[in-house]
Amino acid sequence: MRREDLALYLVTDRGLSLGRDLEKVVLQAVEGGVTLVQLREKEIDTREFIALGLRLKAALAGSGVPLLINDRVDVAMAVDADGVHIGQSDMPYDIARRLLGPDKIIGLSVETMDEVIQANALDVDYVAVSPVFATHTKTDTLTPFGYEGLERACRLTRHPICGIGGMNADTAGRAVACGADGVAVVSAIVSAPDPYLASKNLKSIIDNELDKRRLG
Amino acid sequence: MRREDLALYLVTDRGLSLGRDLEKVVLQAVEGGVTLVQLREKEIDTREFIALGLRLKAALAGSGVPLLINDRVDVAMAVDADGVHIGQSDMPYDIARRLLGPDKIIGLSVETMDEVIQANALDVDYVAVSPVFATHTKTDTLTPFGYEGLERACRLTRHPICGIGGMNADTAGRAVACGADGVAVVSAIVSAPDPYLASKNLKSIIDNELDKRRLG
Repeated sequence: MRREDLALYLVTDRGLSLGRDLEKVVLQAVEGGVTLVQLREKEIDTREFIALGLRLKAALAGSGVPLLINDRVDVAMAVDADGVHIGQSDMPYDIARRLLGPDKIIGLSVETMDEVIQANALDVDYVAVSPVFATHTKTDTLTPFGYEGLERACRLTRHPICGIGGMNADTAGRAVACGADGVAVVSAIVSAPDPYLASKNLKSIIDNELDKRRLG
Repeated sequence: MRREDLALYLVTDRGLSLGRDLEKVVLQAVEGGVTLVQLREKEIDTREFIALGLRLKAALAGSGVPLLINDRVDVAMAVDADGVHIGQSDMPYDIARRLLGPDKIIGLSVETMDEVIQANALDVDYVAVSPVFATHTKTDTLTPFGYEGLERACRLTRHPICGIGGMNADTAGRAVACGADGVAVVSAIVSAPDPYLASKNLKSIIDNELDKRRLG
């Protein structure tokens, strides 16, 4: 994975997609500038999860945008996705790496500063600081990092890093200014009236900050 | 898998185990004569599922009793279980076989007579007719096969076959008399006051019927 792939990371949520077809929302978002897609499904049969993964993979073919699967290594293997995103209660990283091999992307959620540091011992492809701000998307009760925590995590990690949780057009720029390579968003895109425009706007905000860093 | 391994097939359910430790219940059941164990967990984090699978695998080591994992091929691979049991809404059989390789056990639930026949086209290791009788264990609303349906399924299948659903000391003998190689039970063992005695009693009923078939 290239570090740039983290710039605008879309995490799906069918429940928040206003009843719209998930493939359509994802394709509009990719058209608008999304650089990475994670299919996240918590309440779904394995068979349906695989079918959805295969449809998204076909939809993304040729776009250059990698497709990751949340948690389920078997689903990722079944659809030959580009990798998985795992959390702290999902499959341990070393087992996931063994099953997926060295070439697949494995991203890891880090929910405390200790986990940011522990992740430096792993060869994960990126870490996602979670959450930057509290949201209704995650039912977990975690202490948000805030901008200060995110900034500290960016200094402490040796990995590509993004923020997730409360990331939208109002917060994405400052999150990147904290040192993140990008932001992961759910509702700011999937619940937007126009996922294409929402993505385009977010991408331009993020690119603007990344340009400042490169130039400055 | 040997056909005899289906004789008394324990499917776990921690919620029905009266608060007792799952490993203890399983070991008592194996001591009593259980020939196959399936770890079934529907509401559990992947990490906890793997940890439980590893504990059960260690507990069963040396017993000769194979350990299967319900639905989750990634968990089965992570713990190097002997195989998986999949249902009609789980991973499609051909994908599971590709991921697990030719040597692992793959059992399949068949819920209609059509599915019994369709399974003859697959090289599954066994089929489980589900349910023989309605139970509270499965929330699904399926039409039970009854003894007559089970008997017909036993004639139609080319695979080792067991019945599941309402199997207990009152029904197991007749289920085997219908032609099944064994029965899969949940509450008749895990909710029994003494899982060892319950298993021993069931095993003796089943062996008695299997002996009759061999002799007669």
